[in-house]
Amino acid sequence: MRLLEEKIKTDGRVISENVLKVDSFLNHQVDPSLMNEIGKEFAEIFSNEEITKIVTIESSGIAPAVMAGLHMNVPVIFARKRKSLTLYEGLLSASVHSFTKNETNDISISKKYLNENDKILIIDDFLANGQAALGLVDLVEQANAKVVGIGIVIEKSFQPGAQKLIELGFRVESLARIESLSNGEVLFINEKVKG
Amino acid sequence: MRLLEEKIKTDGRVISENVLKVDSFLNHQVDPSLMNEIGKEFAEIFSNEEITKIVTIESSGIAPAVMAGLHMNVPVIFARKRKSLTLYEGLLSASVHSFTKNETNDISISKKYLNENDKILIIDDFLANGQAALGLVDLVEQANAKVVGIGIVIEKSFQPGAQKLIELGFRVESLARIESLSNGEVLFINEKVKG
Repeated sequence: MRLLEEKIKTDGRVISENVLKVDSFLNHQVDPSLMNEIGKEFAEIFSNEEITKIVTIESSGIAPAVMAGLHMNVPVIFARKRKSLTLYEGLLSASVHSFTKNETNDISISKKYLNENDKILIIDDFLANGQAALGLVDLVEQANAKVVGIGIVIEKSFQPGAQKLIELGFRVESLARIESLSNGEVLFINEKVKG
Repeated sequence: MRLLEEKIKTDGRVISENVLKVDSFLNHQVDPSLMNEIGKEFAEIFSNEEITKIVTIESSGIAPAVMAGLHMNVPVIFARKRKSLTLYEGLLSASVHSFTKNETNDISISKKYLNENDKILIIDDFLANGQAALGLVDLVEQANAKVVGIGIVIEKSFQPGAQKLIELGFRVESLARIESLSNGEVLFINEKVKG
């Protein structure tokens, strides 16, 4: 998605070979107009999947997911993240390890908002090692609902998450795919192909 | 806001005299189309305030705030919530006590996203005791920016938050104002006036 790639180039900050900060427009300060375009894009990409609900995870997934939900006219559920979850009968829960923060969180969704007839689009801001996406897949499958797609705003393609999810048979669509963050610069996969 | 009040009547669940659950459309599962209407409404109400940015708090404030930002064409910043914050030079931070959860969190915003020329609209999903809103006001004022309005989706008018903020001189606009949750029923202030 051209608009997003341009925004990453101008406003993203490369912190290291693994870390890209986009807190000026995506995960701290949010650009609502860009989120709206991202939502439209997801709606178009997944238009043939008969999606009934979107599932995301707090907090940074919420803005793009809600915009996608607006354009697809479906509800959005955001999983809650907790350091440690007191088990509770009405909740589906899974463990998610963050390599970036080196911490494990429990994530959860109320059982009543997912059922076996749901066709779910998972949306998240970043895909790196795939732990968050796999946790969300786990929650959806616990409810016997079907994951029909995974929509990612920024994929760090040099980390193994996307490949892992594709090998598991999921349709993964990322709006920006980063080949590398070497030398303080963002290189997208399409740039590499062209160059 | 009629549409919101109707949604609260049909889909909200009164848990006790103090607790209204709206996790089917606002703070767990989210109704994007309703959020869009809420965003429009805030944009209209505060149209004369020359707002430059919206400030909210993760996670439940994000959906209504981003929709408001879309209709007002301004960025949205969501404050991060942490059990305990390691002090860090680039952050504005404040303490917020939640009476509902009986816990205190530190909330924070990066300094670089607020400045003295900003006219800020604070948006949040609920207003009860006013602690979250006061914490956000604190962050904004630490940056020498000005709070020009506080937009609330659901105000529990029988708790002291709204009154507190109004006495401090803030313009508080709540889209649904709940007079009471007695006898398992939601009574709005406008119903009381009419009745």
